[in-house]
Amino acid sequence: MAHYAKPLARLVAALERLPGVGPKSAQRMAFHILRHPEEEARQLAEAILAVKQSIHFCRECSNFTDQELCDICADPGRDRTLLCVVAEPRDLIAMEKTNEYRGLYHVLQGLICPLEGIGPEMLRIRELFPRVANGVQEVILALNPTTEGQTTTMYLASRLKPLGVKVTQIAYGIPAGGDLDYADQATLISALQWRREIL
Amino acid sequence: MAHYAKPLARLVAALERLPGVGPKSAQRMAFHILRHPEEEARQLAEAILAVKQSIHFCRECSNFTDQELCDICADPGRDRTLLCVVAEPRDLIAMEKTNEYRGLYHVLQGLICPLEGIGPEMLRIRELFPRVANGVQEVILALNPTTEGQTTTMYLASRLKPLGVKVTQIAYGIPAGGDLDYADQATLISALQWRREIL
Repeated sequence: MAHYAKPLARLVAALERLPGVGPKSAQRMAFHILRHPEEEARQLAEAILAVKQSIHFCRECSNFTDQELCDICADPGRDRTLLCVVAEPRDLIAMEKTNEYRGLYHVLQGLICPLEGIGPEMLRIRELFPRVANGVQEVILALNPTTEGQTTTMYLASRLKPLGVKVTQIAYGIPAGGDLDYADQATLISALQWRREIL
Repeated sequence: MAHYAKPLARLVAALERLPGVGPKSAQRMAFHILRHPEEEARQLAEAILAVKQSIHFCRECSNFTDQELCDICADPGRDRTLLCVVAEPRDLIAMEKTNEYRGLYHVLQGLICPLEGIGPEMLRIRELFPRVANGVQEVILALNPTTEGQTTTMYLASRLKPLGVKVTQIAYGIPAGGDLDYADQATLISALQWRREIL
């Protein structure tokens, strides 16, 4: 864009790389940053760098955390016989917001997708089995009702069943092709209540 | 949000302060930053800081620039007898995108708004008059057709007329209450062509 001064053009380009940000909103954000106090800009820049430096996977559940164990895994009030498997940290947050689930989580950090070359070994699946062997009575598979979600659900169920653990799947309360992340709380609660054993 | 690790919560909060960014898109952006290479995050953080450090007003037109003179003021190919007055840098960019206008600009960096206590002395209006005295034959007022835009247009026209310069106003091609920034190029071109002398 020849219309911007170079540092401004660089900021607009960097903002445009964020998801859901087009040229117009990137421009709006850049002008907002220019017009607001330097303190606010520094907070944003530092928060971006801090997140990259301090956030990593929880040793237990692979959720994002800045500790060794995330707050949920470290919480003694959680039911350690229940393990809910989700694809993404945002799905975990969606589940937490229901205030209905009191067990632990396991975050796969993705779904099996042969078309994109994503196999089980590229996800946090290996880390799941030792946890299941450690006193877990039920594994709830809470993956999106998409092809990738169903593939991953069937794969995990077939690997978990031989371990003698109860494996359930959240109900089809979530509309097919939809996104767990965007389901309302009532839908998520009913999906939790309607879970049924598979295989 | 107790659901996020602290550095993540701080980033989400900082992103939410940007215009048009709600909790959901802030979360999405934060996870995007977490998942992408540190290099990309550093580029964004540095672009934010660089823009605050290096961008200031052009000495002549008050547009944002990292030089003493912005690219347009420094361009010898521009028609220096024409001066187009806009409220915001984004309006200047919208005008430039028409490829129709070859004169210079003057950016007010806002509009007169008595309700919000913004008087002429708080805008870059003082800087306009010495420029007009310096060989300009026509001043085109290209402000939004809103109350603030019309107030500012009338104020500027009454101050510029005594200087013996031709003062025009872009046509009502832009729908009333609309935003120059969002007008399509054809509307902006017709607005330029239909300008008429006022007062």
